Amino acid sequence: MSEVKRIKPTLSKGTRDFLPGEVAKRNYIFNTIKSVLRKYGFEEIETPAIEKLETLTGKYGEEGDKLLFKILNSGDYLTEVRSKKTEVASLTSQEITPMISEKGLRYDLTVPLARYVVQHQDDLAFPFKRFHIGPVWRADRPQKGRYQEFYQCDADVIGSNSLLNEVELTKIYVEVFKQLQLPVLVKVNNRKLIDEIFNAVGITDKKGEAITIIDKEDKIGWQGVIDQLIKLELSANQIDDLHRFLINKNYFDFKISFKDSLAAKEVDVVMKHFDKDASVVFSASLMRGLDYYTGTIWEIACPSSSIGSLGGGGRYDNLTEMFGGQNMSGVGISFGIERIYDVLEELQLFPENITQGVKVLFVPREESVEEFTFQQVQQLRDAGIAAEIFLGNVKKQKQFNYVEQKHIAYIVEIGGNEVQSGKFRLRNSQTRDTEQDLTITDIISRLS
Amino acid sequence: MSEVKRIKPTLSKGTRDFLPGEVAKRNYIFNTIKSVLRKYGFEEIETPAIEKLETLTGKYGEEGDKLLFKILNSGDYLTEVRSKKTEVASLTSQEITPMISEKGLRYDLTVPLARYVVQHQDDLAFPFKRFHIGPVWRADRPQKGRYQEFYQCDADVIGSNSLLNEVELTKIYVEVFKQLQLPVLVKVNNRKLIDEIFNAVGITDKKGEAITIIDKEDKIGWQGVIDQLIKLELSANQIDDLHRFLINKNYFDFKISFKDSLAAKEVDVVMKHFDKDASVVFSASLMRGLDYYTGTIWEIACPSSSIGSLGGGGRYDNLTEMFGGQNMSGVGISFGIERIYDVLEELQLFPENITQGVKVLFVPREESVEEFTFQQVQQLRDAGIAAEIFLGNVKKQKQFNYVEQKHIAYIVEIGGNEVQSGKFRLRNSQTRDTEQDLTITDIISRLS
Repeated sequence: MSEVKRIKPTLSKGTRDFLPGEVAKRNYIFNTIKSVLRKYGFEEIETPAIEKLETLTGKYGEEGDKLLFKILNSGDYLTEVRSKKTEVASLTSQEITPMISEKGLRYDLTVPLARYVVQHQDDLAFPFKRFHIGPVWRADRPQKGRYQEFYQCDADVIGSNSLLNEVELTKIYVEVFKQLQLPVLVKVNNRKLIDEIFNAVGITDKKGEAITIIDKEDKIGWQGVIDQLIKLELSANQIDDLHRFLINKNYFDFKISFKDSLAAKEVDVVMKHFDKDASVVFSASLMRGLDYYTGTIWEIACPSSSIGSLGGGGRYDNLTEMFGGQNMSGVGISFGIERIYDVLEELQLFPENITQGVKVLFVPREESVEEFTFQQVQQLRDAGIAAEIFLGNVKKQKQFNYVEQKHIAYIVEIGGNEVQSGKFRLRNSQTRDTEQDLTITDIISRLS
Repeated sequence: MSEVKRIKPTLSKGTRDFLPGEVAKRNYIFNTIKSVLRKYGFEEIETPAIEKLETLTGKYGEEGDKLLFKILNSGDYLTEVRSKKTEVASLTSQEITPMISEKGLRYDLTVPLARYVVQHQDDLAFPFKRFHIGPVWRADRPQKGRYQEFYQCDADVIGSNSLLNEVELTKIYVEVFKQLQLPVLVKVNNRKLIDEIFNAVGITDKKGEAITIIDKEDKIGWQGVIDQLIKLELSANQIDDLHRFLINKNYFDFKISFKDSLAAKEVDVVMKHFDKDASVVFSASLMRGLDYYTGTIWEIACPSSSIGSLGGGGRYDNLTEMFGGQNMSGVGISFGIERIYDVLEELQLFPENITQGVKVLFVPREESVEEFTFQQVQQLRDAGIAAEIFLGNVKKQKQFNYVEQKHIAYIVEIGGNEVQSGKFRLRNSQTRDTEQDLTITDIISRLS
């Protein structure tokens, strides 16, 4: 730190600090997801934040490319541009960018996965079941609940066509949200079924637009969808048919219409594992990400909140093609970590103990007993008990705040008497109940 | 993914992917450090990867500033430059950079900590004991063991002058490396003592250069140090005195020379807690980061490897000043995660079980028994046992590789017989020992 310049500390827009209590809550979500995924045989991987722009560009459409954070080349980049006899004066931002920036921050975890699978295919066990939790970056306009740096959490199976993967992923969704005690609906549909419905109804040209409209059903309701389909100039019959097929949320009724199709069979293989589980529902109107997914699709709805989808995913066939990989079918789900956090907060579903710091705080009443106090604390730690000595401001209020903020369960104050007797008073910081005349061994056995 | 363009998948230079086995080993190191730190009352925080350049610039010296990764502003940044009537044609890279880039990637975890402490001071409990593990970025020339994106791991106490913090941090070092079963020396010195020695020896002007030379003692030996001090034109007496004071690695002999000094008392308070612990040594010649540290300093040496320091730290007084914070004394240590990984690998000290995937793999011999197999696997999972069904290539060799690569302990093959009898053969994948005629309940109780 060679230079001291006073500046007001602020964050870059759309980024966040996390306080200790927030990190604890986020870790609770991450650890819940990780433990379920590991039980199902998924392994964790990591890829760098920085990728070459040639890896990232062109994968997210024109709008997505604009949202990539690009890193300025190091060194004297302008001289390099000029050395190629380029007149800098006449260049537009768009023209100069590829000349002065070769790398960027990852936009999601999917394109890095594709690169990773192709690059390391000889070192991976297939079917490759991986999960990845980490930050991604988008130069989006920040707003409530939308950040420029945020976490994604993806689990995918690459290289297996079996529909039992879909069953497993559905079970994982159910188990994670059950462990989080968050009531959700796991909505299931199948891209092939959507195709069949549109074929049956005779919609071809306007399929894409119709899908975008139907996708808004959650927000505008069926009447809104119908109004917009009329504007799209679908025939009354077509709209009737679509409505009849898509409004049907119950697969076991619905499949009668399409019972001989491959799509219906695929849905059947998955759904029959959940006929006793009301949290997994077939939803014919679920449309998501049509041009990428090719089979089963999911979306997680949370009826107890207005927060929107808490996750989604589907089967896809072209993941590794862009990197010259052989075509491997993949299927994956994602957890909307940031929204899950918000809804657990909103519904007050975070368990109390997850933000707890150490079990007990020892407070020396004067400096002369600090050394003695430290030795007691160290005995607890040696016995594996999380404990602290308070070495801060002697004011009672400061000590009280410390216990409060770090959610410490017990307090032991140490003064001359305690040093002499070797007996301590253990106070519960919540109930204020105390136990007297405890030796350090007593305290260890109480808190173990 | 709107466009498919085949490109060879490669990483940006100086960055890495981590394979599942590597992530498991890294998590083992992280979790070991985290569990010790939590036992001592440290809480985890997180700050964003992206910081404003005004926060980062000027904190790392001129050389450091050059190594900051800078992010290009979004949108039409050149038009913005031109709108300020600036002639782009005449600008140098250095001049245009602040006009087209406002943010960068964090270079370490220390400056973000300083910003964080000042920004959130009203929401933190002081003394603030935090740890932070995360990636940092430097546009350094990549070479063996040096990356552009790498992890740092810091633990600091802000707002307490007590030397018992130093004792705690030393104990944390000892405990972490003991748990990792990695033999190290925790070297301790004190910046004030270094000042006193140089005063006693009468070196003032050339102090900085002399320190830089002495710091190389590990690499060039004492004779090398003496040769260079001669070239620095220190007097023979000064060199003799320096050598006499600094070569002394034993604090309890050494302190006789400086016994009445404040510095010696500070060292004493810390070292007396470790008089029975040979892994903590006083090292008078330890000099590190002189212009930043103001009291105790540490460095971790690993005599069983040539890899260099595995960590270091010290007490400092001016952390928050640059952000206008009131001066709070801080003391912190860091763990050289990347090197610890390399040395654990080199000395083969990673426990075997940490890379283990699920406990058991069920292999359906034909597609018709997949559904049955899946149900067995699900029973294990419902009992909390990590288990998998193999849904990949039917070739024996592929299955074998899968078990091998994911370090799966047991295998159960399922065919028509098993479906009929409900009895299974559990094979240990290492020893190849088998147990016959087990029901699924038997397997659950074996593996629980």
